[in-house]
Amino acid sequence: MTISDIPTPALIVDLPAMERNIRRMSDYFASRTCKLRPHFKAHKTPEIARRQIAAGSCTGLTCATIGEAEVAATVSNDILIANEIVDREKCRRAAALARDAVVTVAVDSVRGLEQLSEAATEAGVTIGVLVDINVGQNRCGVAPGEEAVVLATRALGMPGLKLRGVMGYEGHAVGIHNRAEREAAVRRSMSLLSSTAKMFAAAGLPTDLVSGGGTGSYDISSEVERINEIQAGSYALMDTDYGCLNMPFEQALFVMGTVISRPVPERCVIDAGHKACTKDHGNPSVKGMKDATVVALNDEHAIIEIPPTSTIKVGDRLALVPSHIDPTMNLHDVVYALDGDNVIGVWPVAARGYRR
Amino acid sequence: MTISDIPTPALIVDLPAMERNIRRMSDYFASRTCKLRPHFKAHKTPEIARRQIAAGSCTGLTCATIGEAEVAATVSNDILIANEIVDREKCRRAAALARDAVVTVAVDSVRGLEQLSEAATEAGVTIGVLVDINVGQNRCGVAPGEEAVVLATRALGMPGLKLRGVMGYEGHAVGIHNRAEREAAVRRSMSLLSSTAKMFAAAGLPTDLVSGGGTGSYDISSEVERINEIQAGSYALMDTDYGCLNMPFEQALFVMGTVISRPVPERCVIDAGHKACTKDHGNPSVKGMKDATVVALNDEHAIIEIPPTSTIKVGDRLALVPSHIDPTMNLHDVVYALDGDNVIGVWPVAARGYRR
Repeated sequence: MTISDIPTPALIVDLPAMERNIRRMSDYFASRTCKLRPHFKAHKTPEIARRQIAAGSCTGLTCATIGEAEVAATVSNDILIANEIVDREKCRRAAALARDAVVTVAVDSVRGLEQLSEAATEAGVTIGVLVDINVGQNRCGVAPGEEAVVLATRALGMPGLKLRGVMGYEGHAVGIHNRAEREAAVRRSMSLLSSTAKMFAAAGLPTDLVSGGGTGSYDISSEVERINEIQAGSYALMDTDYGCLNMPFEQALFVMGTVISRPVPERCVIDAGHKACTKDHGNPSVKGMKDATVVALNDEHAIIEIPPTSTIKVGDRLALVPSHIDPTMNLHDVVYALDGDNVIGVWPVAARGYRR
Repeated sequence: MTISDIPTPALIVDLPAMERNIRRMSDYFASRTCKLRPHFKAHKTPEIARRQIAAGSCTGLTCATIGEAEVAATVSNDILIANEIVDREKCRRAAALARDAVVTVAVDSVRGLEQLSEAATEAGVTIGVLVDINVGQNRCGVAPGEEAVVLATRALGMPGLKLRGVMGYEGHAVGIHNRAEREAAVRRSMSLLSSTAKMFAAAGLPTDLVSGGGTGSYDISSEVERINEIQAGSYALMDTDYGCLNMPFEQALFVMGTVISRPVPERCVIDAGHKACTKDHGNPSVKGMKDATVVALNDEHAIIEIPPTSTIKVGDRLALVPSHIDPTMNLHDVVYALDGDNVIGVWPVAARGYRR
């Protein structure tokens, strides 16, 4: 099978580029105390996670949902759900996973602790918990400092739970384009996490896991005292959003489409719209064509402005460069792994959607 | 099964509201020559399409992709693919469908005609073709008038093809909020389609199908001379975008989430982000809560501003009202059909994603 046999629209991954990204990140962490726990939510694809772990420097996998965790557990036996889970059925699913894997879940409420404790006790397992700290993203998480210590102390006494430390995601800072500004914002956030970890230690609370960071901050957060795990995910495949940050990672993921219309010289239309390539971080670019611009992305169409002299014709294929990798991966059931024009594998995006 | 047993995030449909929408649209077309061909792309769900057709006034189903057409053909034996298909394998799939159904495909290029003709001839079937006209959306489609006549004339002589008429989608006009402005823009577009149909008739070319329109324009376009089919789809379920247009259809689709965090009095976070409810037409609203605002929609989180005095707590459930139904449906594998709090059905969104 070669690239021309792939039905469009389709996710395609440049396998050598992805392998280089994975190698670079793993090399970065090889000589450090702080390690990497790749975020599975970025690609939801076991074949990619396997390669990330095989490259070394990884403690396990990070997930955002219980459904992702169930799939990730087929690849790693150490899973962090870096997100709150609060309902009975999902806590039961987490407990079921904890029979064969180390499972750790973020918590920011007593209700969350209670539900996890009940499920763990019922299943006769131990679930690890990390207190989730709001480090400035203003999403989930308790306030840094005393509030975190209070919740952690509650966790200590609950059956079936093992307090493991703290986490905080500086999601508001990882995408700041200017390096100096990004460094400053990330350090401010991570100092809140670090100082809370210090309070934990002073109070005799465990801090074996102090987790944060993303692709835009891995080399900043990993240098902050006490932070010992980074949750980066996008680095393996990249997108145009992270591509602006001048990181040592190459674009490895594309959405291939077929030109279905060239109604006028200055416009062509391909069969890959935002049901194939999301636009929540802006319209995608066109691979290898600086003079082409996606001017609109409809459900099933990318409308592309091209030079009127372009030789592009109906039936040709073009590739979009996604602006946001996570939701784009989530639209597809498989990703085609390419070495040059050869299809090396057709990999299930196994954790796509919401498993029941 | 009741609403509280549904794992979140989940698509839920208010079945009585949907049935009323379907009935209203079907009643509108009952006494008219112009009929309805509901667009399957809006929901991709056979159970919903079945109800649309059962209500009457429908000629068949409209689809945007060959994958949708293959699923839609399990419900109707008259399928319009209102979009260009130009590669060999997809044309073969269209020809395979044409063995048991009337299949009509939009074309705007000689290449498209040639590929369809070749596939139809190989399979020993006839594929209908509609010349796609650019009525102002500036996406696909040949220019109205002479250019359309020229392409249609080419189609006439090709084996395996049956020219059926013209189509044009006024996608740039269907969402204009002001009714008078929308009417004017839709009429301008549809007059281009109508005048081209008139030229077809004068040239002895068939015009048994003159197709256009959407939910925002069904009652405008259907009044334009010669237009005999409307492609509306969103009316059955609706979204906040179409909800602004003061149409006789109720919101029937929601994305239910669980409150996973209420870290401060003025904020709660639910487990339904833009991997569950797209934001390409803006952030969703919160059902039944005028004083709640989705301030950010991340991959797996909706961050919601609420009054500090609200009694919302971790574990509660909230429902989002999507701003754009089509891509939101496309994120989920099933939709839960509710009558009050009772789950009447769990319907596969069978045409989600890209079938191979």
